[in-house]
Amino acid sequence: MRPLDLRLVAIVDPGRAGGRDLVDLARHVAEGGATLVQLRDKRGETRAMVALARAIKSALAPLSVPFVVNDRVDVALAAGADGVHIGPDDMAVADARRLIGPDAVIGLSIKTVEAAAAAPLELIDYAGIGGVYATTSKEQASAPIGPEGLARIVDVLHGRAPDLPLCGIAGIDADNAAAVIGAGADGVAVISALSLAPDPAAAARRLREVVDAILAKRGS
Amino acid sequence: MRPLDLRLVAIVDPGRAGGRDLVDLARHVAEGGATLVQLRDKRGETRAMVALARAIKSALAPLSVPFVVNDRVDVALAAGADGVHIGPDDMAVADARRLIGPDAVIGLSIKTVEAAAAAPLELIDYAGIGGVYATTSKEQASAPIGPEGLARIVDVLHGRAPDLPLCGIAGIDADNAAAVIGAGADGVAVISALSLAPDPAAAARRLREVVDAILAKRGS
Repeated sequence: MRPLDLRLVAIVDPGRAGGRDLVDLARHVAEGGATLVQLRDKRGETRAMVALARAIKSALAPLSVPFVVNDRVDVALAAGADGVHIGPDDMAVADARRLIGPDAVIGLSIKTVEAAAAAPLELIDYAGIGGVYATTSKEQASAPIGPEGLARIVDVLHGRAPDLPLCGIAGIDADNAAAVIGAGADGVAVISALSLAPDPAAAARRLREVVDAILAKRGS
Repeated sequence: MRPLDLRLVAIVDPGRAGGRDLVDLARHVAEGGATLVQLRDKRGETRAMVALARAIKSALAPLSVPFVVNDRVDVALAAGADGVHIGPDDMAVADARRLIGPDAVIGLSIKTVEAAAAAPLELIDYAGIGGVYATTSKEQASAPIGPEGLARIVDVLHGRAPDLPLCGIAGIDADNAAAVIGAGADGVAVISALSLAPDPAAAARRLREVVDAILAKRGS
């Protein structure tokens, strides 16, 4: 499998979508340049969540943008999603890998250098590192790590798995995305900067311009 | 597979356990005569839920009492539970069967005659019918159906699947369990009458006496 393209990870969350239809939102950000879409729904009922995940998967399929479900391996499997994103309160990665199979995408949230040193990197396809900046999209139990903290975690992960795709997460927008890529991430994971933007597709295009420009500089 | 023994289904729920340890509670009610234990946890984080389900499964295994998880196919699979119990807001039965495999137990909540006529009985191992009586264990969206309503649903299910094990659920205790069995159920599903009893094992023994006595009369 080609390494996952993490340049712009769009997280869609019914609690952070400003009343927008999540399927439309997912389609628009993908059309604007999101390279991976994640559904995060911590409060929905399972039946509705499966229906929503299925609809998002169908909307993204023609755009060839992969789709993962936060936490819920059952929903990912039922909806035919491409994988799951696992946080510290979710199922252990080894359990998730056993249930979802060897070919599905598993992403893992990593918040500390210690977690980076201990994470089962051989079982995952990407890591989301943060929270980089302060955010209102999620209760933050710990202080933002900033680009400096991000760089330290990137170093540990690159030491263990040089090719593992990494993105920064939390409070990232077009103004600070460059610093996240500058700190060594391969992309940014974004919620509000897309979901609550007046034009989510345009916001995705703008974020991709920023990210792609810094990646091009890094590559050259 | 032998038909499931539904004489006393104990539902353990962290929100309805009076602060009791759920593993101890599951063990005690099984020692007292519960024939199936269900974990219902609508608010926990996935990681904690898997750990709890695994601990309950281990506690019940020496007693040969099967164990199902409400709603969460992912938790059931990760914890090695015997199956799942599916309600109207949970994953569709066909999806659950596909994910959990042909040998796992699937129970289905049935609340109306219409649902009884339409349910995919060929995919399930038992049905829980109700709410029979008023209960404080769960928000009830509709009025209790009473033993008469239960009998009507039992008739429809028996017409379609004569051997499908059936239990009544909601507000059932040692005082009204006889009426539930009298209406045609093979057993009772109970939360508070066990979980909040001073001695859950003794409460389970008493409920089994009531249920077994009426079943013996029906059988003779």
